[in-house]
Amino acid sequence: MNGMGVTYPLGFRAAAVEAAVKKPGRNDLAIIVSDCPCAAAAVFTRNLFAAAPVLYSRRIIEQDGSVRAIVVNSGNANAGTGETGLRDAESMATLTGSGLGIGKDEVLVASTGVIGRPMPMDRIAAGIGKACAVLARDGGGAGADAGLDVARAIMTTDTVEKIASRTVSGREGEIRIGGICKGAGMIHPDMATMLAFLTTDAALSSDVLHPMLRRAADKTFNAVSVDNDMSTNDSAFLLANGAAGDVDLEAFEATLTDLCRELALKIVADGEGATKVVMIEVTGARTDAEAALAADAVATSMLVKTALNGNDPNWGRILAAVGRSGAVIDTGRIRIELAGFPLFEKGLPTEADLAEVSTRMKAKEVRIRVEIGLGTGSRTVYTTDLSREYVSINADYTT
Amino acid sequence: MNGMGVTYPLGFRAAAVEAAVKKPGRNDLAIIVSDCPCAAAAVFTRNLFAAAPVLYSRRIIEQDGSVRAIVVNSGNANAGTGETGLRDAESMATLTGSGLGIGKDEVLVASTGVIGRPMPMDRIAAGIGKACAVLARDGGGAGADAGLDVARAIMTTDTVEKIASRTVSGREGEIRIGGICKGAGMIHPDMATMLAFLTTDAALSSDVLHPMLRRAADKTFNAVSVDNDMSTNDSAFLLANGAAGDVDLEAFEATLTDLCRELALKIVADGEGATKVVMIEVTGARTDAEAALAADAVATSMLVKTALNGNDPNWGRILAAVGRSGAVIDTGRIRIELAGFPLFEKGLPTEADLAEVSTRMKAKEVRIRVEIGLGTGSRTVYTTDLSREYVSINADYTT
Repeated sequence: MNGMGVTYPLGFRAAAVEAAVKKPGRNDLAIIVSDCPCAAAAVFTRNLFAAAPVLYSRRIIEQDGSVRAIVVNSGNANAGTGETGLRDAESMATLTGSGLGIGKDEVLVASTGVIGRPMPMDRIAAGIGKACAVLARDGGGAGADAGLDVARAIMTTDTVEKIASRTVSGREGEIRIGGICKGAGMIHPDMATMLAFLTTDAALSSDVLHPMLRRAADKTFNAVSVDNDMSTNDSAFLLANGAAGDVDLEAFEATLTDLCRELALKIVADGEGATKVVMIEVTGARTDAEAALAADAVATSMLVKTALNGNDPNWGRILAAVGRSGAVIDTGRIRIELAGFPLFEKGLPTEADLAEVSTRMKAKEVRIRVEIGLGTGSRTVYTTDLSREYVSINADYTT
Repeated sequence: MNGMGVTYPLGFRAAAVEAAVKKPGRNDLAIIVSDCPCAAAAVFTRNLFAAAPVLYSRRIIEQDGSVRAIVVNSGNANAGTGETGLRDAESMATLTGSGLGIGKDEVLVASTGVIGRPMPMDRIAAGIGKACAVLARDGGGAGADAGLDVARAIMTTDTVEKIASRTVSGREGEIRIGGICKGAGMIHPDMATMLAFLTTDAALSSDVLHPMLRRAADKTFNAVSVDNDMSTNDSAFLLANGAAGDVDLEAFEATLTDLCRELALKIVADGEGATKVVMIEVTGARTDAEAALAADAVATSMLVKTALNGNDPNWGRILAAVGRSGAVIDTGRIRIELAGFPLFEKGLPTEADLAEVSTRMKAKEVRIRVEIGLGTGSRTVYTTDLSREYVSINADYTT
């Protein structure tokens, strides 16, 4: 029986258990394991205040050895925990390695949840033991449910699990890629880390894997802005175990990017208080970097986001955001399109029927296009609207 | 009788009239005039999509001649109006100059309000005529009410007028500085421009005035973030007519800066939906520029701002914002203080009583201090919390 998500590719198994880090009755610890050694790549948060598991896993990735497993817990982010936290992250790897009979340096570690609190290592250790016991059983963790269970175990404020899978033709048959992720948007005391775990049975070296994952993440996970804050724990891991043989690199990268985009959009759609997904497409900037500045300024403008929430075709806020972004613009050349309607061009507002635009903005997906008209630089990012509910979710926690 | 605000210094008069650009019953056009020529300085929006009056006034300032008057309207921003808008801004100067019997190049122009709509020049012209008629009367526009009336005429979404005045000892007696401003926070179709008009009877050359205003604005108007969007019309003008003689430059600059801070804080306190003013003080960064990155990241973080709204002592969000800001930090050295309580230091959360911190956060003014511990760079900025009401105000406009 085929697995789902991380267990979709050949040779991957996974187990999720309840370690009692989160509230009772929910799985909160998971292990993903490959039956054979994998090439591994990762991208991590650029937040300088990186959590212990990020610091630890970055070191494992930098050693560039083979990787066999990922251990992840939700409920405690192991962030702001000092030296003790680093030792705890390492212990999670050691315990997982010995439980699975692999080297501790073959284990990547990730955590998400409350920050600033010590890891409950007794419960974590017991959970790792339970998960390893499941995986030690013949065919343990290989069922269709295993991938789903793991996708659910990493959720914090997410309302739905996020799973995707793809196939691509390999030189010796079908290559599979699977992935799960959890979402952005923070709620105290949880810092809602973006975690993504990707697996494939393609045979790829880590030399190839690293830049490929970086490019794919840049266009997808790093193009997502729910609330403009990078978590201390954000991590994406990609393991390739080679069980299905070689693959054309270009085809693989395109498929991987597509899968990452599906996962990233699932994060956006599940953003706190979001009523719609907004795609912001900037073209015609002098450089890609300037296009990115413009796209990010629009995506993170509270004024644009509240206008989207209210279905208000407010081109002025979009234009003002682009104008302050740092991208070079020429007011006479810029063109703003919202929900398919051109609203501003040649230095002047168009005659568009704003009531009709507003009606179209009620869709679950709204596209903003900004053509700058000065070059070929482009960037597409994804965000949500900003709702009262977002404020409620994030303001109403009382310590 | 002494004036208020812009009419507080000797030799300045002002008139506000109803030009029927805004809704009926409210003054929406004003002229400020000096009885003798002034040195003038200005700072303008850095938004590349600058409105016509900004483009026009920037040219006047660059000519570096003497200035006698400012004409300002609210209700229409003359932004996104193309070539016609530029001609309209110039017409406002021409009409004001001829109405007052001064050169058109001695008139600065400012506008705030709706964007993307042509200026109703017939009504604007009639309003300018009315205001000039008031000022042509003997002692017209010199009363105490004149400054107040002008402060009210420039309001858009502001709920209160914003006026400040100061005195400083000059070489030949008392020097006066007066100022008015209007606020930040946008509401469609108004783009709530930050406008500030400052007057003084000190004798100062424009060579001195320019860098002085730039420094003062940088610490005050440019240190204010209500919603992180720079308007297309933001302008601050400073006119010095010399009627009270020379002044010590350092003393004058300190007083000017203090006055600008009072005005800037009035803008913050009147921010849309704001329940409190938040001062963010970053010290110990490697450079002032890095301190500014860190301060801005905290001030514009929706997660920090919602936590402030909910009186949630969420040091993790502050730390995460600093960590992604681009400022170099060392987790072991950073120290976060909120409402007077240290919450994070030496890499770990403190034992502070978070319930007590939350109670203290209910004040109208809350201070966040971030000591980075790596150098002497510092930056202080001011912002507000983010409330459901902010979202309501900005989302509920329907075109």
